[in-house]
Amino acid sequence: MIVGPNAPLVFDRKVRSTYMKHAYDFYKPDLTSEFPVVDGKLSIQCYLSALDNCYRLYYEKYQKQYPQAKSIGLNQFDALIFHTPYCKLVQKSLARISLNDFLLTTDPEQRKQMYPAFYEKYDTIKLENTYFDRDVEKIFMDYSKDTFNTKTKPSLFLANQVGNMYTPSVYSGLVSFLVNADGDVNKLLNKHVGVFSYGSGLASTMYSISVTNDCTKLQSLLDKLNYVKPLLEQRIKISPQEFTELMELRVHNSHRTSYEPSGDIDRLFPGTYYLKYVDDMHRRTYEKRE
Amino acid sequence: MIVGPNAPLVFDRKVRSTYMKHAYDFYKPDLTSEFPVVDGKLSIQCYLSALDNCYRLYYEKYQKQYPQAKSIGLNQFDALIFHTPYCKLVQKSLARISLNDFLLTTDPEQRKQMYPAFYEKYDTIKLENTYFDRDVEKIFMDYSKDTFNTKTKPSLFLANQVGNMYTPSVYSGLVSFLVNADGDVNKLLNKHVGVFSYGSGLASTMYSISVTNDCTKLQSLLDKLNYVKPLLEQRIKISPQEFTELMELRVHNSHRTSYEPSGDIDRLFPGTYYLKYVDDMHRRTYEKRE
Repeated sequence: MIVGPNAPLVFDRKVRSTYMKHAYDFYKPDLTSEFPVVDGKLSIQCYLSALDNCYRLYYEKYQKQYPQAKSIGLNQFDALIFHTPYCKLVQKSLARISLNDFLLTTDPEQRKQMYPAFYEKYDTIKLENTYFDRDVEKIFMDYSKDTFNTKTKPSLFLANQVGNMYTPSVYSGLVSFLVNADGDVNKLLNKHVGVFSYGSGLASTMYSISVTNDCTKLQSLLDKLNYVKPLLEQRIKISPQEFTELMELRVHNSHRTSYEPSGDIDRLFPGTYYLKYVDDMHRRTYEKRE
Repeated sequence: MIVGPNAPLVFDRKVRSTYMKHAYDFYKPDLTSEFPVVDGKLSIQCYLSALDNCYRLYYEKYQKQYPQAKSIGLNQFDALIFHTPYCKLVQKSLARISLNDFLLTTDPEQRKQMYPAFYEKYDTIKLENTYFDRDVEKIFMDYSKDTFNTKTKPSLFLANQVGNMYTPSVYSGLVSFLVNADGDVNKLLNKHVGVFSYGSGLASTMYSISVTNDCTKLQSLLDKLNYVKPLLEQRIKISPQEFTELMELRVHNSHRTSYEPSGDIDRLFPGTYYLKYVDDMHRRTYEKRE
């Protein structure tokens, strides 16, 4: 990703919000292992509370920056993209924003009008008590279902195909959102995209992107992403058993020295760099598939 | 260190030079070990060639930036500070800059005048052949000895007392240079300080600092460093045997879980944070010595 002037995607200024906290939710303390230590329940709570905090600060900054804005909250976005540990959590996150919008609608009349089905029942709800409240979760999952399908589901295309990507997760969401337009710039011009980025430990940010109104500039960006779908289609289907064996091989070899990987080079896409050899001093040599 | 406006130490602009290269000179590939893998000879060669490259680019940029400068090379600096793996290499580095100055003096008459003792003998020398040339090293160590004693030795005060500090090394050199003035701002006002920073792998930078001409500002910086010498004097002397035992204990405990360190808290300086406990999930708890 190149950051610079005349960008097809423009970061909105003065509205970015950040939230950080010391937390042992998901981490890699055992340096000999390929795998993290995960406190699953804590990790979900951390993610959702980071989202609450970032969203509320973003909302506040947005209000200050655009006092004349017609709509604020979920409605102001044409798309919402999230860091994606797994797709279900993203759907819960959109519902979470919907819950925040509900709580931020403090005028009783307005609340009644916007949420006729449950404005009384959830009148006294507190965010910090609802991380694992299935009842509240279900109400807002239902309430935001259509919004999820139109504004967020398209950004889950790669996560759905590839699985948890850790660091590139939120950018794969942005790529998914863009390639979902199938090259039609009109589906993307002037769109306003909210982004929630999260890393365990934890550090999180919410920001927004305004897509350019310049067709040529946007087309040029989309052209560069033409490779994404064909690359996915070139994947080779293997059996779960073979997949498991490959993963076991990876664990077995992860810190070996004087070691030459035995994988089939022909399976790599042309142009891929691969590890050729690790010598007895752990020095690594790479080659490139023709 | 705080970077900002109205600084007592000012980074000179447009002269900073950087040199990077992929090298396995000193690295930590074995994540279970406290210790690095070191290719000693390569590491020295990498350090000295990085110094050559940074110095020459700095020299070139300085010439371009200050075409009217009276002196260039070693003479333009009142002090020179280096990343310090060990003090002897720093002395060799100053000699190395002196060798570079010699080679950069291309006018034969000027060279003869400045280096009467050996201008003929080393006329055709090439930098890349001299990393381990003891003869050349000795000539330029001797030639630069006085310069080393006045311009660089003061910056080795902490390295000499504390040993190799890795990352903070070059900044400990800067602190040493400053505390060496014993609070006398007149020894530091307007001084021009060259800095060479190096990290194995490798990345290196040469830059320079101009000390302010504002007494009050400088005094305020020096006051903040008043703690350095008293802290060194408070160290507790222990036998080599006890030191070795402490190091072995450290290695033994380095990745343990459900572990409470057994060291003597009273030996820590007041205000020091220390590791209290590592639980079975590798989560670390710290406390602060009163």
